[in-house]
Amino acid sequence: MTTPDAVARARPIELVVFDVDGVLTDGKLWAIPTGGDDRSSETVAEIKGFSAHDGIGFGLARRAGLKIGIITKRTTESVARRMRDLRVDYVYQGVDRKFEALREIWASSGCGEVQTCCMGDDIVDLPMINRSGLAAAPANARPELLKAAHFVAAHAGGDGAARDLIEFILKSKGIWERVLRQYLAAPDSDYAAAAVGVAAAEEIQQ
Amino acid sequence: MTTPDAVARARPIELVVFDVDGVLTDGKLWAIPTGGDDRSSETVAEIKGFSAHDGIGFGLARRAGLKIGIITKRTTESVARRMRDLRVDYVYQGVDRKFEALREIWASSGCGEVQTCCMGDDIVDLPMINRSGLAAAPANARPELLKAAHFVAAHAGGDGAARDLIEFILKSKGIWERVLRQYLAAPDSDYAAAAVGVAAAEEIQQ
Amino acid sequence: MTTPDAVARARPIELVVFDVDGVLTDGKLWAIPTGGDDRSSETVAEIKGFSAHDGIGFGLARRAGLKIGIITKRTTESVARRMRDLRVDYVYQGVDRKFEALREIWASSGCGEVQTCCMGDDIVDLPMINRSGLAAAPANARPELLKAAHFVAAHAGGDGAARDLIEFILKSKGIWERVLRQYLAAPDSDYAAAAVGVAAAEEIQQ
Amino acid sequence: MTTPDAVARARPIELVVFDVDGVLTDGKLWAIPTGGDDRSSETVAEIKGFSAHDGIGFGLARRAGLKIGIITKRTTESVARRMRDLRVDYVYQGVDRKFEALREIWASSGCGEVQTCCMGDDIVDLPMINRSGLAAAPANARPELLKAAHFVAAHAGGDGAARDLIEFILKSKGIWERVLRQYLAAPDSDYAAAAVGVAAAEEIQQ
Repeated sequence: MTTPDAVARARPIELVVFDVDGVLTDGKLWAIPTGGDDRSSETVAEIKGFSAHDGIGFGLARRAGLKIGIITKRTTESVARRMRDLRVDYVYQGVDRKFEALREIWASSGCGEVQTCCMGDDIVDLPMINRSGLAAAPANARPELLKAAHFVAAHAGGDGAARDLIEFILKSKGIWERVLRQYLAAPDSDYAAAAVGVAAAEEIQQ
Repeated sequence: MTTPDAVARARPIELVVFDVDGVLTDGKLWAIPTGGDDRSSETVAEIKGFSAHDGIGFGLARRAGLKIGIITKRTTESVARRMRDLRVDYVYQGVDRKFEALREIWASSGCGEVQTCCMGDDIVDLPMINRSGLAAAPANARPELLKAAHFVAAHAGGDGAARDLIEFILKSKGIWERVLRQYLAAPDSDYAAAAVGVAAAEEIQQ
Repeated sequence: MTTPDAVARARPIELVVFDVDGVLTDGKLWAIPTGGDDRSSETVAEIKGFSAHDGIGFGLARRAGLKIGIITKRTTESVARRMRDLRVDYVYQGVDRKFEALREIWASSGCGEVQTCCMGDDIVDLPMINRSGLAAAPANARPELLKAAHFVAAHAGGDGAARDLIEFILKSKGIWERVLRQYLAAPDSDYAAAAVGVAAAEEIQQ
Repeated sequence: MTTPDAVARARPIELVVFDVDGVLTDGKLWAIPTGGDDRSSETVAEIKGFSAHDGIGFGLARRAGLKIGIITKRTTESVARRMRDLRVDYVYQGVDRKFEALREIWASSGCGEVQTCCMGDDIVDLPMINRSGLAAAPANARPELLKAAHFVAAHAGGDGAARDLIEFILKSKGIWERVLRQYLAAPDSDYAAAAVGVAAAEEIQQ
């Protein structure tokens, strides 16, 4: 269901913004007690399951120089943690009106609509999706989002949809092979990225 | 497997009642220790996974003026919490005979059979399903329920079945587009609903 | 893949024995910390996800007078709890040689091979499966079990495979309709079963 | 997508090395609070879901004399526990460059490229996959891995992919039937393996 103009729309992208529930997760909300002695909200934590494939995708995006953000309505510690681990540039939790948060990211990043890709799976994402140069949705998105999206991922949220999107952008830009080789040469660290040559990467990859 | 009269049956619905396990969840029952020092039942909590899509569906239903209830055989804190978060009108846990609970909801709400939709996935739901103006089942329901239902959701329980049902009712009533626009204008709060005009919503949605 | 003689084999069944992992669950093993201050095995509990549909199936089986057992290699508190909740007759955990446990159940119950149905999903279940009047497997069983089984469930383990089997046995015996009506009249309690007449059940079911 | 030379490549295998996330699990990363009083990393544990089918596969591999290893980028206590339970020979966690860890295993085990099978699901596994006599991938692997693999499992990671691989190797070696019979005769213990005759196994299996 990806539209014919998606590759052209992907080329100028510099900022990729994700909704969380249903996009970076499968959309299941789990509340788990934390061992406190009453039932106040402090004794319950919400846990989420993130995809290892997406995690590597975020690393690839960072190496390619893309900025990454998340904008989500809910506020949970597990999202804060995971986004910190992935070194996400812009983290907006507890947001009712997502387009307003997107405008704040635009102000910080210097990006505008043409440079921005948003991925969302539900109607609350429509205001930011509709202002994206490249609108994207996971395979399990609600019908309104599938219809609004220029790019629909092969995988569902939490199962690699974000990775699908990042690879699509890097391939549209024509830099996938280079970024992949660089990532394999220095898979989990930023410090060595500048010094990594393609030849060294090819040797490791043989 | 939705029946030809389902749209006509959906139009007068004012009350939507859900079973929980297998309808608002995927029907998996998880018991998790809470860190107590013995193995009494107080040290074990049951956790459940709810769908973010259903949560937005409940918000849409509330905005459309529908009353929402749940009737479930089990009693767990995670259900109580989630239903409180979603501001569900009628919460009946620990119910063996579901039709009796439905009658209590009828007495409180002033609704009757014609105004009531029930969604269930197993045989214990048949007594309330069989007294519903619109009988509904998730895609993963047991065969007896699929047969008894006027509306069968495209999604399984815990994966958006409740959302499918709510959208079907709102579309049958011809108010889906209006409710959607209002919800996008004030996605997570009731206080602004009255003041939200369609024009403002369209501006945000552009 | 159910064999032509499965209905005839199901009629004399009086005892149904289940493996746990992959049969009453999806076969995933989850270890979760319990909040202790070191990492000894006492601070880790294994949790499992059981199916609500299977739970009702066990209730239907009990009402029909079938005896239920489980035989599993692992030992976990969550299995002990769930089996106690479901009032399972024979619970064997920590069993390496499943046929030996089955022989103990035969000695206690007075049942023999012809009256016994076993459901298993992996090769360690073959010794008990191969001594069952009715051999059964969930949809996700390993190939050796699918080949050895007389009855293969439509659902995978943890998703209703046990329920499928119990319904198949009750239908083969010709008592499904009666047991279903009785269960609906007294869904969650044993005490009223003797007094429940079909007429009353039909009234509730209308 | 298994290549025609896969059986010939499987025959000399003596060492099987697995990635963890997406291979021995479904690739979901879950962070769960452990009941501590602040939100430092010590109060959060990562849990993973392993497959019971894979567990039996590891037992079959051990009985066949294969060495087993894991090489994973992440470091979690649940992996350490599970690998100890399964008596895995080589456990490398926290590894950025997987081929270097593989070389260490080669030095310890005396195996080389021809005797080694590696299974991985993502690009960080390519350096070790590309140096494997038999390269393997689960059904859910990213496209680069599916292309690089000689053997692609029927099941996804965490759902039996490792078991599929181990059975494929044992069948390619022509020892599957013998190992299966021995395992059924002494399913969960090493001490009796030497003394187990095929006749005894057949008696139990009848």
